[in-house]
Amino acid sequence: MTKIITVSREFGSGGRQIGHLLAERLGIPFYDKELIKMAAEDIDIEEHIFEMYDNAFMEKKEITYTPFSHTYEVPMSDQIFMAQSRVIRRLAQHGPCVIVGRCADMVLKDEQCLNLFFYASFKKRVQRLLELQKLPETETKQMEKRVREIDRKRRDYYQYYTGNEWGKPQNYHLCLDSQKAGMEACLDAAIAYMAHLN
Amino acid sequence: MTKIITVSREFGSGGRQIGHLLAERLGIPFYDKELIKMAAEDIDIEEHIFEMYDNAFMEKKEITYTPFSHTYEVPMSDQIFMAQSRVIRRLAQHGPCVIVGRCADMVLKDEQCLNLFFYASFKKRVQRLLELQKLPETETKQMEKRVREIDRKRRDYYQYYTGNEWGKPQNYHLCLDSQKAGMEACLDAAIAYMAHLN
Repeated sequence: MTKIITVSREFGSGGRQIGHLLAERLGIPFYDKELIKMAAEDIDIEEHIFEMYDNAFMEKKEITYTPFSHTYEVPMSDQIFMAQSRVIRRLAQHGPCVIVGRCADMVLKDEQCLNLFFYASFKKRVQRLLELQKLPETETKQMEKRVREIDRKRRDYYQYYTGNEWGKPQNYHLCLDSQKAGMEACLDAAIAYMAHLN
Repeated sequence: MTKIITVSREFGSGGRQIGHLLAERLGIPFYDKELIKMAAEDIDIEEHIFEMYDNAFMEKKEITYTPFSHTYEVPMSDQIFMAQSRVIRRLAQHGPCVIVGRCADMVLKDEQCLNLFFYASFKKRVQRLLELQKLPETETKQMEKRVREIDRKRRDYYQYYTGNEWGKPQNYHLCLDSQKAGMEACLDAAIAYMAHLN
């Protein structure tokens, strides 16, 4: 029986791509950045302002421009998270889908979901990203730095909004190395596991 | 293609049982405590002395009785680990099998293996153990203490002998919650993943 599937992933692991393939294979919708747009509509903020706040959280910069500060008491980044969470819950009500990132596993913790976490060795992730972006080996150090940064941001974001540890197996049904056996292995394993979920 | 499968598991997760079922399903040997006997033969130590040392490590007690101290320079517990590692490598050379515990994933890190880690929520593990041992609910606190202790010992053992973090997804191909979807789900997922391993 097809469920709502949430995907968390280390940067460069290909987890997003596997989530997309999974949605295709199951014939269900896939949501990623689309969520931001929908959440923006949900709280009636223009998208570019919305994204600015979203990125500001990710960059850990102080937000000085707060056009809604006179109407909201909680920080804007938290407002956005809550709006996104509302959208995620709304999507979940509509039926099976794949949702990548945005702490969807925790937002939907009371729903019947399959929560997946994808990872791969640091070296393989860096290598994969260099290949994907057609960058030369001389860019390796720079890419390593970027992978560390983005992983740290994802960890902080997850920790901040859920109080849980990002990538800790106990938060997920299945954690899968996406590079050792390839993406098809992950797809097949996730589908095989899901078939037994009530 | 069937491989050597190593199983690590949280206490009470049922990982050992799943490993056994996996071996049955694949028609390959299953090794657990048998390893101790084989390792004992390998370094020609009587089994009861061997087990005493093995338990002593697990209990973190100081070992005062060292009958072989005049012949070995490294600690007895390390000798035993090395002997077990030799046995594990020997088993791996004989063909596909399932090996539970004993840091087999790291001992065989240069081999073609499928490394699995099984876990479940603390509450479900305690509940499962109480049911398995037909203990009343009044024993819950005691069982919780025992689960924490054994997990800690496994973590320490793994950390000591491999330098790696026990239960960290990146050490395994697949980490599976054994209780959320049941043991059959884990079996099917592991076999589906393994089919893609070179």
